[in-house]
Amino acid sequence: MNRINALKQKAFEEKDFDGFLIADEANILYFAGFPGAACLLIPRNGENTLYVYGVNYEQAKAEGKGFRVELVKRDENLAAKVAAQVKDFGIKKLAFDMLTFENYRNFAKGLRGKARIKPQNKLVWELRKVKDAEELELMRKAGQLTCEGMKAAYEFIRPGVKEYEAAAEIEYAMRRKGSWSTAFDTIVASGVRSAFPHGGCTDMEIREGDLVVVDIGASYCYYRSDMTRTLVAGKPSEKQKRLYEIVKTAQQKAFQAVKEKAKAKAVDAMARKVIEEAGYGENFVHSLGHGVGLEVHEPPALSPQSKERLTAGNVVTIEPGIYLVGFGGIRIEDTVLVKERGAEKFTNGFYTIEAIG
Amino acid sequence: MNRINALKQKAFEEKDFDGFLIADEANILYFAGFPGAACLLIPRNGENTLYVYGVNYEQAKAEGKGFRVELVKRDENLAAKVAAQVKDFGIKKLAFDMLTFENYRNFAKGLRGKARIKPQNKLVWELRKVKDAEELELMRKAGQLTCEGMKAAYEFIRPGVKEYEAAAEIEYAMRRKGSWSTAFDTIVASGVRSAFPHGGCTDMEIREGDLVVVDIGASYCYYRSDMTRTLVAGKPSEKQKRLYEIVKTAQQKAFQAVKEKAKAKAVDAMARKVIEEAGYGENFVHSLGHGVGLEVHEPPALSPQSKERLTAGNVVTIEPGIYLVGFGGIRIEDTVLVKERGAEKFTNGFYTIEAIG
Repeated sequence: MNRINALKQKAFEEKDFDGFLIADEANILYFAGFPGAACLLIPRNGENTLYVYGVNYEQAKAEGKGFRVELVKRDENLAAKVAAQVKDFGIKKLAFDMLTFENYRNFAKGLRGKARIKPQNKLVWELRKVKDAEELELMRKAGQLTCEGMKAAYEFIRPGVKEYEAAAEIEYAMRRKGSWSTAFDTIVASGVRSAFPHGGCTDMEIREGDLVVVDIGASYCYYRSDMTRTLVAGKPSEKQKRLYEIVKTAQQKAFQAVKEKAKAKAVDAMARKVIEEAGYGENFVHSLGHGVGLEVHEPPALSPQSKERLTAGNVVTIEPGIYLVGFGGIRIEDTVLVKERGAEKFTNGFYTIEAIG
Repeated sequence: MNRINALKQKAFEEKDFDGFLIADEANILYFAGFPGAACLLIPRNGENTLYVYGVNYEQAKAEGKGFRVELVKRDENLAAKVAAQVKDFGIKKLAFDMLTFENYRNFAKGLRGKARIKPQNKLVWELRKVKDAEELELMRKAGQLTCEGMKAAYEFIRPGVKEYEAAAEIEYAMRRKGSWSTAFDTIVASGVRSAFPHGGCTDMEIREGDLVVVDIGASYCYYRSDMTRTLVAGKPSEKQKRLYEIVKTAQQKAFQAVKEKAKAKAVDAMARKVIEEAGYGENFVHSLGHGVGLEVHEPPALSPQSKERLTAGNVVTIEPGIYLVGFGGIRIEDTVLVKERGAEKFTNGFYTIEAIG
């Protein structure tokens, strides 16, 4: 309920809305603690109402504590039903988080002449991007589980293993320790495919001397984590070692710059400068990092274009990389918590290019 | 390219559009064979163009065969860039698949005075819901992999095992055989939580006599599968066996009704009638099924409200269930291909309430 009160403060007191419609699945989970609702209507005056189809109705009543739970019957039109309630609540200016254009049109049609409707997802992100103590505990746990997966990667990856076999061992290790799901599709990209940041995971055999980018995440109570290491199956070459040290230094420098009030673009620049000075600026083809939480890609972005300053409670990735087409790629990534002074790593260890198996 | 030509036929010949903007991730994958693009612009006259950020640019050039690949630089505005290209292509009436309201507004603003823009995702679904031979091979494979997971469930589930431990074994079995990822978050819901159709998977221990709903899916080359079985840890009670037989009969009857030109609601009714006549109509709280493909929930819906007729090439789930709050739930689900005469099961076997471990 604290989260809903904080949203009401932002939307109803600091702005002049008198209702908020939450339709995005992760936002519903954030405010209601329950993922299976079609939408959540928060009125200035009246009861917070979850709209739920029959398939999830009993679960919503059991788990959606403190909410009125409204059954949406098979033959009912959700937009019309919500619009009627908006009118009953006397809402005149309704904010919403996220709707497809077609759903927006349906809601707007239902509300015509009753209420104005305006997108305000930024207000929700202002809340979600600053994690509270409860969220941080879950994210710490998700980070620990992710490290269990990385341990399995370093133990299992060797020449002759297929990429998806390595993924199987990694995911199994995380699951056995209590991970709820993979935070995103596991990447085990070897050889020349490691030069593609989103190289996925195929049935290719990892060969002696291949660079292998392992980008994985566990989740716990819906909260996610994100971690990348790069290792070589067998003995790394001098060039591989040299590139590895550049990326590792870039990651360390950026991590050291993370703290409350740091400019996001300045943190990005710390890593980018190391890679540029080594002559690989053009090969660092993505931003330094992104927020993580209920979703794996959230605000704030750590990029050269970012206009944000970091806040204590942000959880972000720090993930510089160098990608050489035809040769391979190296990325090192941790999920870290921004604190008043400095930062805390939720993922840690395994800063080595050599497998331990 | 056949898929793009089919879309052009529908949108440009049968309707009067002269451009199609594809922005939904699964749709991009469907038309381009590559998932990492920001959007795909298909003009009546001109080259099909993939818009790709730097992070995926090299991969798009390597894997996005037959497309012009346009790099979206960090400081460029995607909507403005696409709008300029729409103008260059001479597009006057642009269809799009799916955009958030805010993205729609950005595109519409960029196109003002140049082109009209209209949602037409239905045209894309008309194609995607009829799978071609290549897709069916991948979905057969996804179904086989899912059955490997179900075998693990029947072997591993016994009293004392935790739900997430069972999920770990199931997912590991699918992965080891070549599954790319779980098609959705694995459900292993035991005891009273089995009465929630989306009961998830917790750290609860499965107890002697518990109903356990196991709802799982493997994926292969991005194509998904969906399968549910319900089993009892230990010896099932008479009531559990009786309910099981009702659901099993309902599932068989519905399966027998699946064929080209069958009304979707008639197939739903076949299963619903069995459950209603047994006195549990109120406890079958969801539709009979849904389409499956690149996504786990696709058209066509098999529900009492559906107005569609099935077509050869549709791949749908058949999943009746009975859910008794405080007692538990039973669901039996297969992914099946609609054929000219009858149907083919992509998932099969394990129609028993007793574990085999």
